[in-house]
Amino acid sequence: MKVLIVYAHEEPNSFNGALKNTAIRTFEEGGHKVLVSDLYRMKFKAVADGEDFLERRDKHCLKRQIEEQAAGELGTLAHDIMEEQRKLRECDLLMLQFPLWWFSMPAILKGWVDRVMSMGFAYGRGQSYDTGGMKGRKAMLSITTGGPDFTYSPLGRNGDIEQILFPIQHGILYFCGFEVLPPHIAFSPAHATKEQRVKMLEGFRQRLSTLDRIQPIAFHPADHFDEHLQLKSEFQS
Amino acid sequence: MKVLIVYAHEEPNSFNGALKNTAIRTFEEGGHKVLVSDLYRMKFKAVADGEDFLERRDKHCLKRQIEEQAAGELGTLAHDIMEEQRKLRECDLLMLQFPLWWFSMPAILKGWVDRVMSMGFAYGRGQSYDTGGMKGRKAMLSITTGGPDFTYSPLGRNGDIEQILFPIQHGILYFCGFEVLPPHIAFSPAHATKEQRVKMLEGFRQRLSTLDRIQPIAFHPADHFDEHLQLKSEFQS
Repeated sequence: MKVLIVYAHEEPNSFNGALKNTAIRTFEEGGHKVLVSDLYRMKFKAVADGEDFLERRDKHCLKRQIEEQAAGELGTLAHDIMEEQRKLRECDLLMLQFPLWWFSMPAILKGWVDRVMSMGFAYGRGQSYDTGGMKGRKAMLSITTGGPDFTYSPLGRNGDIEQILFPIQHGILYFCGFEVLPPHIAFSPAHATKEQRVKMLEGFRQRLSTLDRIQPIAFHPADHFDEHLQLKSEFQS
Repeated sequence: MKVLIVYAHEEPNSFNGALKNTAIRTFEEGGHKVLVSDLYRMKFKAVADGEDFLERRDKHCLKRQIEEQAAGELGTLAHDIMEEQRKLRECDLLMLQFPLWWFSMPAILKGWVDRVMSMGFAYGRGQSYDTGGMKGRKAMLSITTGGPDFTYSPLGRNGDIEQILFPIQHGILYFCGFEVLPPHIAFSPAHATKEQRVKMLEGFRQRLSTLDRIQPIAFHPADHFDEHLQLKSEFQS
């Protein structure tokens, strides 16, 4: 298996850094090949703009999706975008490693999604969700939180973590065609003791070494929806 | 009323640009004062990193929240952060104008949140949600979508727009103490006729001129939660 880890934390000595290193070691020990996009180290360009296209179809008015589609076909997407797309084409598993900032991704990682998951590559021409461009690949989130686990429960102060992650897991990963494995969540490592953090890393290692036995999240595929794109009654829970 | 519009679209001729211009005109005609942070035009720095602190408490290991708290007290946050915080302190209403990209904000706007909503300013020392730093102010989203409205319904293909916006409206705006007004959503302007787009702008203008009559979203304040930060049974629906 080829694994692409996209990692978004500036501090190598952070717990996110330790999780990333644990993932690399565990996958490599399991005989897998690992590629890492260390976005802070790469100084990855976070902001999607006109410079993402080496040539512009329309130089006067930027319609991003039209430019993406055209530049993808002509091979005129910015080089850093094409390099990330090459890594994605090669990989069997995408892992996003990041701290949950403001209940979402750090901007540098959101920018990676905004720029790399271009129309014509990750989706387009009616292809999305279970027919998205990344079909046949798996993806999973590995995140850290500020607050403790009970605050992210359905009745907890911060709200249900499943609902919080829905725009990412369903709206980004599943939309692009990935099968989405359940997330790995390290709750509040900043408030844990050193011994607890060691245990958390060991739990992550065990989880990663048994990934092939873990079922993806059961999002609804296209044929669960009617012609008005509404969930058919037999699939409503 | 003083209004701060934070606007995240590169193309001035976009429908987002038209919504932003409509908002400025409507608020000014209503006698309000308007400030605009046009993030693309400002080339706003999207990536939160060590350069956000003019001095570092710990030069060897970056713990962002600790540096934010200290730099906020010492006045050593980066100048662009302090300038945005000054605008926020002054405003009565914050409006975020952006296209929904990947069911969330464009990276440049997420970076504005990551960097400007710093610990010690927007939250901290036990102050969050209804006691957050922005208490006494209102906020609202004005967004555009790619897909039509029925795909964002609870049973629609893309999922419930309320759930999709929860991490932003509850996790960012309400967390910081804002009262959150219901969002204004322009569905799929790219597929609308010119006449429909003119009507959409007129609807937005009418909505903005009656904002003072619109009730904020009824998120649960602190006293609805028990000592374990779980919603008390009498507030469960």
